[in-house]
Amino acid sequence: MNASVDPVAPRLRALIGQGVDAIDTPALVVDLDAANRNLQRMVEFAARYRLRLRPHAKMHKSAQFARLQLQAGAVGLCVQTVGEAEALAAGGINDIFITNELLAVGKLRRVAALAHQLATRGGQLAIAVDSSEGIQRLAQAMRLTRAVIDVFIEIDIGQGRCGVPPGDAAVALARQLSDASSSLRYAGLQAYHGGVQHLRGVAERRQALAAAAERLRTTCAALAAAGLAPPLVSGAGTGSFGIEAASGLWGEIQPGSFLFMDADYLRNERDPAQPQFEPALFVKAQVISANAERVVCDAGHKSHAIDSGLPLVHALPGQPALHYANGGDEHGILRPAAPGGALPALGDTLWLIPGHCDPTVNLHDHLIVVRGGLAAGSVDTVVPVDARGAW
Amino acid sequence: MNASVDPVAPRLRALIGQGVDAIDTPALVVDLDAANRNLQRMVEFAARYRLRLRPHAKMHKSAQFARLQLQAGAVGLCVQTVGEAEALAAGGINDIFITNELLAVGKLRRVAALAHQLATRGGQLAIAVDSSEGIQRLAQAMRLTRAVIDVFIEIDIGQGRCGVPPGDAAVALARQLSDASSSLRYAGLQAYHGGVQHLRGVAERRQALAAAAERLRTTCAALAAAGLAPPLVSGAGTGSFGIEAASGLWGEIQPGSFLFMDADYLRNERDPAQPQFEPALFVKAQVISANAERVVCDAGHKSHAIDSGLPLVHALPGQPALHYANGGDEHGILRPAAPGGALPALGDTLWLIPGHCDPTVNLHDHLIVVRGGLAAGSVDTVVPVDARGAW
Repeated sequence: MNASVDPVAPRLRALIGQGVDAIDTPALVVDLDAANRNLQRMVEFAARYRLRLRPHAKMHKSAQFARLQLQAGAVGLCVQTVGEAEALAAGGINDIFITNELLAVGKLRRVAALAHQLATRGGQLAIAVDSSEGIQRLAQAMRLTRAVIDVFIEIDIGQGRCGVPPGDAAVALARQLSDASSSLRYAGLQAYHGGVQHLRGVAERRQALAAAAERLRTTCAALAAAGLAPPLVSGAGTGSFGIEAASGLWGEIQPGSFLFMDADYLRNERDPAQPQFEPALFVKAQVISANAERVVCDAGHKSHAIDSGLPLVHALPGQPALHYANGGDEHGILRPAAPGGALPALGDTLWLIPGHCDPTVNLHDHLIVVRGGLAAGSVDTVVPVDARGAW
Repeated sequence: MNASVDPVAPRLRALIGQGVDAIDTPALVVDLDAANRNLQRMVEFAARYRLRLRPHAKMHKSAQFARLQLQAGAVGLCVQTVGEAEALAAGGINDIFITNELLAVGKLRRVAALAHQLATRGGQLAIAVDSSEGIQRLAQAMRLTRAVIDVFIEIDIGQGRCGVPPGDAAVALARQLSDASSSLRYAGLQAYHGGVQHLRGVAERRQALAAAAERLRTTCAALAAAGLAPPLVSGAGTGSFGIEAASGLWGEIQPGSFLFMDADYLRNERDPAQPQFEPALFVKAQVISANAERVVCDAGHKSHAIDSGLPLVHALPGQPALHYANGGDEHGILRPAAPGGALPALGDTLWLIPGHCDPTVNLHDHLIVVRGGLAAGSVDTVVPVDARGAW
């Protein structure tokens, strides 16, 4: 046997300092220059409107990108699960808002432990509720600590998912919160409309959010009349935050996808009231099979989520324009974007823009972070997806 | 501060021996009794047709389930990536077939290292090829070892993905293989038609596979005429293996999903020539938000892949019949299956049958394995998904 064979061949997609060419496929790659430009645009927007910027970390699931956002001016991070909150806290993030409902006693005990941990570091945990039962269970769990948790009442402003209906239901919960244990602090309203984010036209989004804003306004008025005016309204996403900002009703915005962007957001008509963001998240793939009419690459829907559609092929200068068709978990099938167009050769590299960034990141253990562009850049760092699969 | 708060609250979905009720949500749960019955039915079928059974581990991605299949009579396992092969080898599996093309030099070096490692244990690695370039690169990498790798020429019998066209193209590659380094052994043909598996009607599947079998027959005849008759033809999946078996052309079958099943396969009209399999893979979820017309659970498409459709709700005796609608990455929206039907309460448990088992397993780090059924059973073991995200 030949001694040069290492029986434990390393399974690394990239080494820091190597050129982009050396990144093994399929790999999830972040163009850090583009991501930093996106972040700067968002920070400037929030400053102009005097809005608190609390980016949603359900997108990148990474303490390192959370720290980048805090350094740029974000007030804290949002997450969607207690596991994501724990992962960010372990990575040094101190101000975290779980924008979702939790009912399981075991999870609520973890919430209490985390509130305690963050409080000892001078930080703060927040959470959303939409039921009396949820408040009771949270109060019960918080008896484990003297820490205080900020509680936002989620109202359904039109998405039809979680949240109480606009108006009196929120007043009842706000009153319950005010009467509850001193460990629960009524912090305001969670008012997010996920369905609006991906309406294609600006006019559609404005119309849908006008109705949502009216529901929020009604609720705020009812709360104010009861002496329970919300200290803060938090919400908004990458597709619509310009509209929430202009309304004057929201004090904090929670966009996530703007940092990396995805094919689905790129399909939206851009709102001139919002800055323009550029794609910063890519799947690097390789052609593993080829014939005269198609080639097959090694990136299927195990490499990128397809809940919001298939990826776009991002042709670098000199690369052919291609159309991506679904080839299952492990394969993508590529044909020329126009009849008679060129195809790449066996072994060639492709760059894909995933349809939806959040669940795409959740498929990967690492983000390969590149500076200097996709054509000639090099690997700056490899960032763990700390909260991958964290519930 | 209260000393009873553990700042590092454990993040375990289940403990061995606990009842099913104690499993935290969202969790991926295997009903082991059902999976064992499915396995026994498949083993008996393969024995009746004197077929080698090589289940596809791209489905469960777990060395523990691979060992269960070998103990029941499987000859080895299939995988789709070299990373999956490495994970199974690390878990003690010695006979592995990578049913996919690899072109990257780094990956082919890992293939050579793994072939070497398995050979030292008396095992065997196999791989598929569909290009002259692929054979050359594989031969180059295999110079690192004196181990021999079994090489299967993949032919496209109708799926339109990887594989050479039927007929002469396979002869050219078989000749190249026979002339290549003695580290490459021409082992036969890889002939799998993924597209047939999910054709709903038995008649449709039989018709599509009749055409596929004709392409295979043509190729085998051309190879035989050139003195290169394939030693073995391997292929087939859970949706069609009864048809391949009846054809007499295949010597080895590669079904994966039969062990756990999924909503998409359950939608197929059952072929009476195949045994009936039962669902054995479930997502346990919890209701976290409720109102009069809908409830929301904590399992969205971060818990189950939706490339082959949304999950079915598996109502246990006494549970209401529900319809699942997509609520995004983290949520499912449930309404009564029939108008006026009952809804579960806040905090109640739901069981979902995922649309597609392979990419669903890939979202999870562990399979919670239960014996005694979903209603009253208990946790038998917690199985790591060894090859999650392994490329």
